[in-house]
Amino acid sequence: MIEQIRGGVCAPAGFLCGSASAGIKNPEATREDVAIILSEVKASVAATFTTNKVKAAPVLISMEHLAAGDVRAVVLNSGNANACTGAVGKKDARQMAAIVAEAHDLSPEQVLICSTGRIGVPLPMDRVEKGLKKIRLKDKGSLKCAKAIMTSDTYPKEISCRVETANGVFHIGGIAKGAGMIDPNMATMLCVITTDAVVPQGALQRALRASVEDSFNRITIDGDMSTNDTVIALANGASGVRPTQAELIEALNAVGQTLAREIVLDGEGVTKFVEIELSGAASASDARLAAEAIANSTLVKCAWAGGDPNWGRIMDALGYCGADLREDKVDIDYDDQALVRGGLVASTPWKKVRAVAAKKEFKISVRLGLGKFSHTVWTTDLTEEYVRLNLGE
Amino acid sequence: MIEQIRGGVCAPAGFLCGSASAGIKNPEATREDVAIILSEVKASVAATFTTNKVKAAPVLISMEHLAAGDVRAVVLNSGNANACTGAVGKKDARQMAAIVAEAHDLSPEQVLICSTGRIGVPLPMDRVEKGLKKIRLKDKGSLKCAKAIMTSDTYPKEISCRVETANGVFHIGGIAKGAGMIDPNMATMLCVITTDAVVPQGALQRALRASVEDSFNRITIDGDMSTNDTVIALANGASGVRPTQAELIEALNAVGQTLAREIVLDGEGVTKFVEIELSGAASASDARLAAEAIANSTLVKCAWAGGDPNWGRIMDALGYCGADLREDKVDIDYDDQALVRGGLVASTPWKKVRAVAAKKEFKISVRLGLGKFSHTVWTTDLTEEYVRLNLGE
Repeated sequence: MIEQIRGGVCAPAGFLCGSASAGIKNPEATREDVAIILSEVKASVAATFTTNKVKAAPVLISMEHLAAGDVRAVVLNSGNANACTGAVGKKDARQMAAIVAEAHDLSPEQVLICSTGRIGVPLPMDRVEKGLKKIRLKDKGSLKCAKAIMTSDTYPKEISCRVETANGVFHIGGIAKGAGMIDPNMATMLCVITTDAVVPQGALQRALRASVEDSFNRITIDGDMSTNDTVIALANGASGVRPTQAELIEALNAVGQTLAREIVLDGEGVTKFVEIELSGAASASDARLAAEAIANSTLVKCAWAGGDPNWGRIMDALGYCGADLREDKVDIDYDDQALVRGGLVASTPWKKVRAVAAKKEFKISVRLGLGKFSHTVWTTDLTEEYVRLNLGE
Repeated sequence: MIEQIRGGVCAPAGFLCGSASAGIKNPEATREDVAIILSEVKASVAATFTTNKVKAAPVLISMEHLAAGDVRAVVLNSGNANACTGAVGKKDARQMAAIVAEAHDLSPEQVLICSTGRIGVPLPMDRVEKGLKKIRLKDKGSLKCAKAIMTSDTYPKEISCRVETANGVFHIGGIAKGAGMIDPNMATMLCVITTDAVVPQGALQRALRASVEDSFNRITIDGDMSTNDTVIALANGASGVRPTQAELIEALNAVGQTLAREIVLDGEGVTKFVEIELSGAASASDARLAAEAIANSTLVKCAWAGGDPNWGRIMDALGYCGADLREDKVDIDYDDQALVRGGLVASTPWKKVRAVAAKKEFKISVRLGLGKFSHTVWTTDLTEEYVRLNLGE
């Protein structure tokens, strides 16, 4: 049984966190922009990173540290993504880990680094160092950390759960920041999950990978994938409870799906949350291609913004996405209303389908009728507000 | 030597055209919405169609008629795309060809069909028939035909040229309508090109394919590809002049590139015309992937709308597009201003790069430094106006 509790990343036993203001984006600002999350005891670690070939320095250095296999802490900052910063950027990311390691009696390889914010500009390392040294770690303060890593997010994203299993109780918590993209450059999806479950490192990595597929990898707001996207999980075993792999994935999903959903709902200029369930595809890659083509079509997204259940644009996206398609086999529903049957518009009264498209949240089921593969994505409409927020400088 | 002249599709000898009002979208409206273009004598024909797997009925039937190899006329309508209309749609497209064939002493297979407008709704064939029968063909009236096929276009698109070769003079003309996508469903890019040059059918097909690659296939406004996109060329030999293949392609480019450019400039809510010249890719498909990823990134396009030469978003798009990439080899210029060198921001004063991005037209050169393949696309910004126009019902 999974029950929501308070505490965020400090809800599991043996985790500390803290945040401070470093004035990274603006030396005058007092807003907190650096944070540290740390396990008091040895922990298993798992992480997934952006597949973008342009990887930010903190991603590259974190990958190195992850490979060393003994991670205890994560340092995060907003205001600067440390991306497209070359050799200087890598040196700075290593330096961030070293500062945290020195202050908390770790080796630099035991620290992963997450950065988000402006790209192409070196970090102001003097201010970063001063800020990080101000941080006092406590067994609470998760929400302040969630706030410190916000960029264009309008609210902090945090969740924690108590998980009851046949073998006992463990806890899991997480904070995240959104995929929102804003002035002056694109930002990033970051998430740190902590748990006091007992989990060997390999099992944690497999479980995290499975869970990310069904949570953060379902999100597609604008098709753009950041240089910094990172999800990290730390399991320190402090509960003494070892869950089954299924229980662990369920717990990771409870945290990851909630945070992923909030990231979508808090996307820039978003007025709709749309789930697209694509089934009946001839292959797994076809299912993903088709679902993402619908989710990323600017025309489909504009129609949703207008409350228009535009099936023509969906058929069009299915046609150009590259997936195997038989036009006369396609069925489309908006929630429980039939919109397309066999590639032709269904007899459902239009106002019933419109009523679904007028809602803030709805689900579109698309069945290709060619095979057994399916894929689900979570996406949003595309609004004038989104464009306004992304006009840049 | 190529010189612009008047006359549109009737500038070449031996071509007639005409248009009329059929009230397809609205029986009360008097706006013209059907048109016919016809060669008085036997002609070579070539065509390229949408690669969307959801093909409108007129595309499917035109492909059949093209295969028969003896085309003399094209019938076009706006107001209804006859797409996603199943068996009824195919019957109606055949019927349109039959009506034109009967009125002008042709067989139905000698007529190609182009439709654009609303999708998923059968054509009002009684009104279409009445409208088509009203058309009187003349050796002028090309601009009226260009107007009759408009949907969201704000002006008709027509051009014609006199081409002087070593062997004599021939003429070429064309009309087109835009790729703009608008209420209530997506529309289509249509183009008909006529020439009185002497061209065997195979040579015409090869030349058209080459020319479309360097004109209409360069256009990408929103990444959505219509169900109806069609480019048709008719060559009736009435000039008695046989151009070389190079001369023919040059003439087709003069017409096709002008019309393609106008389609981009007349795109919905467009305020910028942007040429992206991607070079140094490791393969031809990489060059296309990378150029199109930049052109179709909503974030990059929003930045242009704001006059922001946002290189971070371009680097990001290069990173996720799937093309081979070495971040530290990427160079980017805005017109003649260096913006990125070796993956890092160049030393060019920012206001100089901004001044380029503030222009209505500019060129972005991206060099990947990995190989000899290149690809050019023409695209636009993404504005609040675009979203407003595409909100649907």
